Amino acid sequence: MDMKQYMQGLGEQARQASRAMSAADSGAKNAALLAIAQRIQADRDALMAANADDMAAAHANGLEPALLDRLELTPARIDAMLEGIEQVAALADPVGALTDLVARPSGIQVGKMRVPLGVIGIIYESRPNVTVEAASLCLKSGNAVILRGGSEALRSNRAIAQCICDGLADAQLPAAAVQVVETSDRAAVGELITMPDYVDVIVPRGGKGLIERISQDARVPVIKHLDGNCHVYIDDDADIDMALNIAVNAKTQRYGTCNTAESVLVASAIATEILPRLASTLHAHHVEMRVCERSKSIISQANSALPLVDATDSDWYEEYLAPILAIKVIDDVEQAIEHINHYSSQHSETIVTDHYQRAMDFIRQVDSSSVMVNASTRFADGFEYGLGAEIGISTDKIHARGPVGLEGLTSQKFVVLGSGQIRT
Amino acid sequence: MDMKQYMQGLGEQARQASRAMSAADSGAKNAALLAIAQRIQADRDALMAANADDMAAAHANGLEPALLDRLELTPARIDAMLEGIEQVAALADPVGALTDLVARPSGIQVGKMRVPLGVIGIIYESRPNVTVEAASLCLKSGNAVILRGGSEALRSNRAIAQCICDGLADAQLPAAAVQVVETSDRAAVGELITMPDYVDVIVPRGGKGLIERISQDARVPVIKHLDGNCHVYIDDDADIDMALNIAVNAKTQRYGTCNTAESVLVASAIATEILPRLASTLHAHHVEMRVCERSKSIISQANSALPLVDATDSDWYEEYLAPILAIKVIDDVEQAIEHINHYSSQHSETIVTDHYQRAMDFIRQVDSSSVMVNASTRFADGFEYGLGAEIGISTDKIHARGPVGLEGLTSQKFVVLGSGQIRT
Repeated sequence: MDMKQYMQGLGEQARQASRAMSAADSGAKNAALLAIAQRIQADRDALMAANADDMAAAHANGLEPALLDRLELTPARIDAMLEGIEQVAALADPVGALTDLVARPSGIQVGKMRVPLGVIGIIYESRPNVTVEAASLCLKSGNAVILRGGSEALRSNRAIAQCICDGLADAQLPAAAVQVVETSDRAAVGELITMPDYVDVIVPRGGKGLIERISQDARVPVIKHLDGNCHVYIDDDADIDMALNIAVNAKTQRYGTCNTAESVLVASAIATEILPRLASTLHAHHVEMRVCERSKSIISQANSALPLVDATDSDWYEEYLAPILAIKVIDDVEQAIEHINHYSSQHSETIVTDHYQRAMDFIRQVDSSSVMVNASTRFADGFEYGLGAEIGISTDKIHARGPVGLEGLTSQKFVVLGSGQIRT
Repeated sequence: MDMKQYMQGLGEQARQASRAMSAADSGAKNAALLAIAQRIQADRDALMAANADDMAAAHANGLEPALLDRLELTPARIDAMLEGIEQVAALADPVGALTDLVARPSGIQVGKMRVPLGVIGIIYESRPNVTVEAASLCLKSGNAVILRGGSEALRSNRAIAQCICDGLADAQLPAAAVQVVETSDRAAVGELITMPDYVDVIVPRGGKGLIERISQDARVPVIKHLDGNCHVYIDDDADIDMALNIAVNAKTQRYGTCNTAESVLVASAIATEILPRLASTLHAHHVEMRVCERSKSIISQANSALPLVDATDSDWYEEYLAPILAIKVIDDVEQAIEHINHYSSQHSETIVTDHYQRAMDFIRQVDSSSVMVNASTRFADGFEYGLGAEIGISTDKIHARGPVGLEGLTSQKFVVLGSGQIRT
């Protein structure tokens, strides 16, 4: 098979389908989503069987347990897929919204209309439920999508894609609006990310290595999320109990998520009051503490039995994704902002304070995709933000920042309504 | 000079300055703009002298007349620069606007804040007034900017940059917020477009060749405008006089602009009525007509003396930027939409019609950055749209489409306002 030709074939079909999807009304798109859910419901056994084949092959290939867990489809996971599709169907359709229409001195009216991006390429790893999630969001936002899942999930993804195509056909929408790359050859990714004529944007979902490679080689815009080195800053004027609550929740509620806090910065004026309590709570949660000199001296003075690790400069950059937290005492909010803008991955940061001006300065000056006051960084999430679902979280600065939902899969064009105006 | 080191030095200073610019309030940014205007006013003679040196060198190097014209600074052009700066100062500041703040079930409030992109790299050709225009827009939107003008304008750009830096200093803003690349070595561009740590977005302004090269090599997002193959579609239900007016204006008001029409599509039902009149008006304007077979037969039947050229498929793709127009008879609005989505450069297209549903279908389904009803494509312009000024026109689909003004130089981050909420 000539890979370039194969991928361009998918691209041409996707481009064609994207025209019909962009013109489809909300009713048709919702009908397709519900038809897809029905098809999946009807084909549960076939999906489970295809997934069992993938799992057997993965076991035989010695895939590690964490990846096996992500690959596995269970009845509960299929239920969650179905629920997800229904949720996306229930979301408001962003496409076609005409806003900001104003009359200009020339007599024309100028506004903006929200429109699909066109063709989205999604590259992801083992979780087959991404196939459904990503397809649902792309369909609802009027786009066509080319899905490139992990080779270990190919049989599962094929079975899911069949349900999706059947559901689209049930609703008289083009089946090619959702296509799965039917080869595990890695060259397919290389083609997918270098076909600007057929693909408008790439969304990679996976490890940092994958995303860096794709960003490096892509000739198409990439909506990407590299890492989440999130910060909690506890200000002089913080409510102590609130600060402890937020810092501990941001670190310990889940260790493996990108919106988990990796560093806590504490204003020096409040450090002796809060650090000993914070340290003993973290210790009770079995969190390893990587501390600056000032933190170390304050904590060990209060309780010399607590194990502490000396932080090095690299700790301030680290996304641990583990029960490890870096702790640093700093002078004030300006230093917190400076530290965060220097070390953070521009994902999500929070300040705990009762001081109005410092809260305002923090949200204005911290250059991250989510900036919070008196809330846990764990809220940085499409569902919590009310986007309904997310295709990913962008730490880029152009187009979409933060959780990317339906709106992030669209853009706005200008609309001019005239009554015969010409330029003079 | 080590080019990488030199460019990274500019990048580091720009990144640093961008922090201060992003925190600067509107008053300070406007004060800087007005101080820059005062400096330019005071240094008019020095600017003219520097430009005279550039002009002399360009003459000696045999630069072509069109480029010489673009390079030249005249008292009137300096006046226009000053007026442009005052207009940007008068525009509303987009930075810091907090919108869509809603309360979520968890108790947090989630909204979006408009923030600068950071550091913008602008690559342009001979016109030194771009230095002032681009710098003004970047400053007002809270960004730092690195300007890389044409080597033939280096002395002029240096003199202008000096006024800008002095004006910034007058207003206590960092002079490094606007930096001019002080070398005519082309390697500087190669560095500028591959420093994602220091540059957030590149805006190339110039010929298609330049923009294609930059897009190909950039490792930073590019806001680009390749070409403007714009269409006028005259529907069955068009008002004949309005259609003639719009088609002729869209083609002939200026030939060299990107929003000039290059093709007119005429619905077959109205073709015999309108084409003979359109053809004789275009002929009177000395416009060469490249016609499809149906157009040819209708026009020559009415007036066999009119010179007509047979259109080839490549004509439908062409951006003539000249008194040439491609003319095609088609069946209906569906075919018009299909033709445009296939051949157009996704810049600006207009339908002339009195039919409500066809107007709606056209604006919804034509996938271009500006879509119009009953207005000349020549309106696709930042000033006409009320953006105040534009840094360029984007034919890309992500981030900004169409004329890019202050808002296109910003993005939105999420803001979460809590009162102690944690995830459970």
